[in-house]
Amino acid sequence: MADAAAGAKLATSNPHDVPMGSAAADFPMPLEPLVEAAPTRRPSAAEEARTIAASGNLATLASLTADGDPWASVVTYGTLSDGVPVLCLSRLALHGRNLAADQRASLAISAPIPDGADPSDYGRVTFAGHVEEPADQGELAAARAAYEAAIPSAKVFAEFGDFTFWVLLRVKTIRWVGGFGRMASTTVEEYAAAEPDPVAPHADYAVRHLNEDHADALLDMARAIAGHTDATAASCLRADRYGLDLDVATPRGRALARVGFAEPATAPDGLRPATVELAKRARGQ
Amino acid sequence: MADAAAGAKLATSNPHDVPMGSAAADFPMPLEPLVEAAPTRRPSAAEEARTIAASGNLATLASLTADGDPWASVVTYGTLSDGVPVLCLSRLALHGRNLAADQRASLAISAPIPDGADPSDYGRVTFAGHVEEPADQGELAAARAAYEAAIPSAKVFAEFGDFTFWVLLRVKTIRWVGGFGRMASTTVEEYAAAEPDPVAPHADYAVRHLNEDHADALLDMARAIAGHTDATAASCLRADRYGLDLDVATPRGRALARVGFAEPATAPDGLRPATVELAKRARGQ
Repeated sequence: MADAAAGAKLATSNPHDVPMGSAAADFPMPLEPLVEAAPTRRPSAAEEARTIAASGNLATLASLTADGDPWASVVTYGTLSDGVPVLCLSRLALHGRNLAADQRASLAISAPIPDGADPSDYGRVTFAGHVEEPADQGELAAARAAYEAAIPSAKVFAEFGDFTFWVLLRVKTIRWVGGFGRMASTTVEEYAAAEPDPVAPHADYAVRHLNEDHADALLDMARAIAGHTDATAASCLRADRYGLDLDVATPRGRALARVGFAEPATAPDGLRPATVELAKRARGQ
Repeated sequence: MADAAAGAKLATSNPHDVPMGSAAADFPMPLEPLVEAAPTRRPSAAEEARTIAASGNLATLASLTADGDPWASVVTYGTLSDGVPVLCLSRLALHGRNLAADQRASLAISAPIPDGADPSDYGRVTFAGHVEEPADQGELAAARAAYEAAIPSAKVFAEFGDFTFWVLLRVKTIRWVGGFGRMASTTVEEYAAAEPDPVAPHADYAVRHLNEDHADALLDMARAIAGHTDATAASCLRADRYGLDLDVATPRGRALARVGFAEPATAPDGLRPATVELAKRARGQ
């Protein structure tokens, strides 16, 4: 974003009361547009949490030692169809012994961080509750299937059956943090009903592509759709099924802006047609 | 590895008593070489833990809620010169409130996982102990410097000083897990005295390059240095400052083998000359 923002003056006031000339002034702020912008939709906390849980297979488990001390350990996980995390743990490992004695557990998952990116800008989710072994053969089969879908070596480990056991996380609390200042809790019901963002696996590539090859289209969107009619440059920070987050340079300072797709993207390759439509709309086509 | 192992028969017995024909039989086993191999050195648990801690800036913290429940949360961290993790936490976040009330904490860090790789094959480390705020201005300055070196946005966050505080993890326990069946604890003293592996940032690339372009050299090493004189193929699984781990196909089955460098690599670009020397030695040059 440094390039797109080059030459932009700093805002003379901002809602965060950040000292001017400080490093914090490099953050784009929620500067009001000059012309009212169309209302936009953002992913809900439940959707963000589902998307993060669906993005990988590596998490960290917090369990309690015999002394009641916290114990963090890296684990692999899969997710059931309602997004509930499933673990396959060793009875010999400390976390396995911990959970056998005290079922209280918490699991944290980070969104994938591109090489060299600042992890503070990316989402993470925490689940808390307790673990339970599958109650019957149906739950066990579902747990195995979920885990094996996520972990290539699962079939091998499962044969060491004396050493491993399956647990489902019975979730009580779900907390999502989306980066600086974006965070919310969600309920288990909302989480189960939400769908992972279908475009998430391609979003980083799309953002890079937009910034490298379509800066002019982003600037058109910032001016015509986000209402920053005086924008001098714009870059894309994030893309999701509902739209794009833009970092907009104006003579008044830098602004965070949101531009929404005409329809939510519903397929993995949905970002391209949705952004093409946005660009055309911005140009009055 | 599937390619290099293609055509290799399965071992008729192995020390893990894995059922033949099962998925677990796809694992290379510690099959004895036909000719005694040169002794080799492996990174210590302390060195593995230092290397993992130095490899990134994203960890998961386990803290205790007011009810004594475990709470896992994704955090960013830096490391002091002795490898001790340093965090900068928000007083408003649950983990900040947790630690203000109960300083017991654990931190888990995973080695970087290449895209598409199985996380079970990569190392992770758990620290456990308690957190403390820096005791004086000197400790505070060291904590800030360590954190800012690891986290690009640290200078920005630090200006929101009312909301954040610095903590050092006073470590009591360090547990390293290197993948299936490789694990050990280490002491705080050994950890502090160990050095992160200087070649770690380039090891994945080197392994890929060896497998793609120098399969013949790896086979020579397996035969002449690792003592598997009947080897029919070899690929590299891991590279570290002391040597290479090889997956060797033989008519007797697949074997895990280790070949050691003449001298430990001491610089980031040390893998190339060390492997060239190994290849020459394998060819009697």
